[in-house]
Amino acid sequence: MQENLAPRRTYARDSVEFARTLTFTDGLFAIAMTLLVVGLAVPTLSDGSSVGELADALNDDLSKFISFFISFAVIGRYWMAHHTYFSALARLDRRLITLNLVYLAFIAFLPFPTALLGEYFENPLSIVIYAVNVALVSGMEVVLFSHAQHHDLLERTLPQDVFRYGVAMSLSPVLFFLLSIPVAFVSTTVAACMWFLGLPFGIIAERWKPKGADELLLG
Amino acid sequence: MQENLAPRRTYARDSVEFARTLTFTDGLFAIAMTLLVVGLAVPTLSDGSSVGELADALNDDLSKFISFFISFAVIGRYWMAHHTYFSALARLDRRLITLNLVYLAFIAFLPFPTALLGEYFENPLSIVIYAVNVALVSGMEVVLFSHAQHHDLLERTLPQDVFRYGVAMSLSPVLFFLLSIPVAFVSTTVAACMWFLGLPFGIIAERWKPKGADELLLG
Amino acid sequence: MQENLAPRRTYARDSVEFARTLTFTDGLFAIAMTLLVVGLAVPTLSDGSSVGELADALNDDLSKFISFFISFAVIGRYWMAHHTYFSALARLDRRLITLNLVYLAFIAFLPFPTALLGEYFENPLSIVIYAVNVALVSGMEVVLFSHAQHHDLLERTLPQDVFRYGVAMSLSPVLFFLLSIPVAFVSTTVAACMWFLGLPFGIIAERWKPKGADELLLG
Amino acid sequence: MQENLAPRRTYARDSVEFARTLTFTDGLFAIAMTLLVVGLAVPTLSDGSSVGELADALNDDLSKFISFFISFAVIGRYWMAHHTYFSALARLDRRLITLNLVYLAFIAFLPFPTALLGEYFENPLSIVIYAVNVALVSGMEVVLFSHAQHHDLLERTLPQDVFRYGVAMSLSPVLFFLLSIPVAFVSTTVAACMWFLGLPFGIIAERWKPKGADELLLG
Repeated sequence: MQENLAPRRTYARDSVEFARTLTFTDGLFAIAMTLLVVGLAVPTLSDGSSVGELADALNDDLSKFISFFISFAVIGRYWMAHHTYFSALARLDRRLITLNLVYLAFIAFLPFPTALLGEYFENPLSIVIYAVNVALVSGMEVVLFSHAQHHDLLERTLPQDVFRYGVAMSLSPVLFFLLSIPVAFVSTTVAACMWFLGLPFGIIAERWKPKGADELLLG
Repeated sequence: MQENLAPRRTYARDSVEFARTLTFTDGLFAIAMTLLVVGLAVPTLSDGSSVGELADALNDDLSKFISFFISFAVIGRYWMAHHTYFSALARLDRRLITLNLVYLAFIAFLPFPTALLGEYFENPLSIVIYAVNVALVSGMEVVLFSHAQHHDLLERTLPQDVFRYGVAMSLSPVLFFLLSIPVAFVSTTVAACMWFLGLPFGIIAERWKPKGADELLLG
Repeated sequence: MQENLAPRRTYARDSVEFARTLTFTDGLFAIAMTLLVVGLAVPTLSDGSSVGELADALNDDLSKFISFFISFAVIGRYWMAHHTYFSALARLDRRLITLNLVYLAFIAFLPFPTALLGEYFENPLSIVIYAVNVALVSGMEVVLFSHAQHHDLLERTLPQDVFRYGVAMSLSPVLFFLLSIPVAFVSTTVAACMWFLGLPFGIIAERWKPKGADELLLG
Repeated sequence: MQENLAPRRTYARDSVEFARTLTFTDGLFAIAMTLLVVGLAVPTLSDGSSVGELADALNDDLSKFISFFISFAVIGRYWMAHHTYFSALARLDRRLITLNLVYLAFIAFLPFPTALLGEYFENPLSIVIYAVNVALVSGMEVVLFSHAQHHDLLERTLPQDVFRYGVAMSLSPVLFFLLSIPVAFVSTTVAACMWFLGLPFGIIAERWKPKGADELLLG
C-alpha cells in the first residue's frame, strides 16, 4: 500500500545509492567465495613430516577440494551474470534493492550446502540441498530481471522475444539442477555431472536466439 | 572541547571521504551478514550416505537455519534503512563518522546473539540478549538521524512534525523488541513473534504520517 | 635503486588507483573488526533452557566481550585516523601503497592478540603482545605520515612545527602502550587502564598545538 | 563460438562495470589476507596466568606466525602487481573478467596451503602445495597480461621487447617456486628461502630491461 501512495524512488546509475548497492553486493559475493576455504581444515597427522601420511589425509579430503573449486565456479558464474545484469540497468528502485537482498541471502547461504557436499558427497540429500539452493538463486535472478523489465529500470526495455529468451536462459540451470534431484537417489556422481549440462545446452540454444539479443541481453 | 575550538570539518556527498565511509560500512554489513553462515556447522554422521540420518541431523539444527534467515532479514532491513538515511545526507562531519562506528559495533556484534538464539532458542536469556542488541542498533539509528537533523547535514532539514514521525518510526522496533523481553520468560516463541509486529504497525502508522513525509523521510 | 632510476609514479586523488587502495584498505579494516566476533563462541550448556546456567557461562566469558568492544574501539580509532590522513593526501606513490600494506598487516593481525587478551586477560604476556601490536600500528602511522610529508604527497605540505606536533600526537599512544608493558607484570588491569591515558593527554596537549594545526592536521 | 558471433563487449576505465570488477577483486584480496589470522588459534593453557607457559605455547606455534606474515607479504605483493596491471588497462572485456575470476580462485585458495605450511612446515608436501599454488597465481598473471596485450585492452599496446620482458618478470617467481619443489625433499627451510631469490634476481634483471619499459610496464 505504502508503495502505491508514495512516489516511487529511483536511484540513477551514477548516484551514490546505485554505487553502494553494488559495493555491498560485490563485498558479499567476495566473502561468500572466500569463506569456502575456511571449510578446508588442515588434517591432523601422527607424523607431521611424513609425505605419505599427509598425501593420504589430503586424498581423503579430495571431495572438499573439488567442492571448493566447483562452488567458486558456481558463485563466480552468478557474479558474472549479476555483473552483466546490472550493466543493463539505467536505475534502481527500492523494490529492486530488496529483491537483490533476497537473492544475496541465498548466495550467502551457499557455503553451507558446499560444505555439506564436500563432507557427504555420496549422500543424495547433500545433492538435493545444493541443487535447491542453486535453483533458488537462479529463480531470484529471473525475478530481478523481470522486475527491471516491467518497471522501466533497463537502459533499453527489451522486445518481448528477447525478454523471453533471456528468462529461458536464466531458468535453464534451474531445470538441470531440479532434474538432478531424482537422479541423486540413484547416483550422486551422475547428478552432479548433470549440473554441467547447461554448457552444451547454451551452445545449442544459440540457434533459438532472437536477432539482436546479444546487444540487449544479460550474458 | 576540541570539537568547539576546532573548525568543524565536513565531507561533501561527492568527496572521497564520504565514499569510503560507505565502502567501510557496506563491507562491514556484508561480512556481518555472511559470517552468519559460519555458525552452520556440518553435522557428524555415523553413516555418511544415509539420507535419513542426515535429514534428522539437519532437522535438529532447524533453529540454526531459521536464525540465519531471520538475522539476514534483520540486518538486511537495517542496511536498507542505512541506505535510505545516507541518501538524505548532503555531507558528513567527523562526529557522524564516529557515531556511525558505534552503530556498526552493534551490527558487527549481532552474529553472536544470532548464534546464541540458534543454539538455545528456548532460553529466555537468548531472546533478551538478541532483543537488547537489536534495540541498541535502532537506538543508534535515531542518534544518527537526530545528529544529521540538528547539525545541518541533511539535503533538506526536516519540518518538526516529519522529524518526529521519522524518530517514532525508527523507535517502533525498539518498543516491540523491549516489550518482548518480559514475554520471553513465559514463551520464547511468542516473544520472537512479537518482533514482527512492526510490520502491521507500520501500515497502521501510515495514518499519522505528516503530509510530504515520504519525499523527505528515511523509509 | 630501481626507485631512483625509474620515474616515480603517482596516482592522483581522483584516479582509479587511489580509489582501489582505499577500497582494499576499508575492506581489510571492516573484516578485521568483524572477525573479532568469531572469537565469541556460544557456550555449551547441560540444560539449554536454564537462564541461570547461560548467565553464568556468559559471565565466565565476560573478558571476551570486553575485549571485543575494546578492540572494535581501538581498530575503529585507527580507521578514523587513516580516514583523516588520506583526506589530506593529494596523491599516492607506490612506496606509500607498500607502506600502507605493512601498516595493514599489523591491523589484520590484531584479532589474534585480542583473542589472546579475551582468553588470558590476567596473563602479563597477553598485555605485552597486545601493546606491542598496537604500538607497531601507531609507529607505521608515523612512517606513513612522514613519507607523505617528505615526498610531496600532501595537499599542503605542513610547516615544521605542525608536522612535529602531528608526529607527537601519533606517537603518544605508542608511549602509553609501551609504558604499560612493565606495569602488566604487576597488574594487568592497571596496564590495560593505562591505554586510555591518551584521552586526557590529548586534551592537555591542546595547549601545545601550533596555530593553524587544526586545518592542516590529521586528527 | 558465441564469442565470435557476438559483438565483443568492453567496459571502459570510467564505467561502473570496471569499478565493480575492482571492488570485487579488492574485497576478495582483503578477505584472503585477513582470513589468515583465523588460523592462529589461542593456545590452551593449564595455568592461564603463567607467562612461561603462554610463551612456550606461542613458541610452539612460531611457524604459524611466520606463515601469517609470509603469506600476507606474498598475497600483498600479488595485490600490488594486480594494482599496477589494472592501472595500465584502458578497458575490460568479458573474457578478461572471467580470467580474473580464475586468478582469484587461486588467491582465495592460498589460506589453505598457508595453514598447511604453518602446521607442517617440515613436511615437503606442504612446501610443494604452497609452491604450486603460488606458481599458478603467477601463471594466471601472465595469462591476464597477455590477454590484455593481444586484445587491445591496454592504454598503450607494448612493443614486443617490453612485453616479453614483462612476461619474463611475471614468470620469474614461478621459476623459483617450481625449482624449490625438488629441494623441499632435502630441506624445507632451504626450499622456503629460495622463494626470496626473486628479489636479488629482480635487481640483476634491471640490466636487461628494454629502454622505456618503466613507463609502460607493470612493476
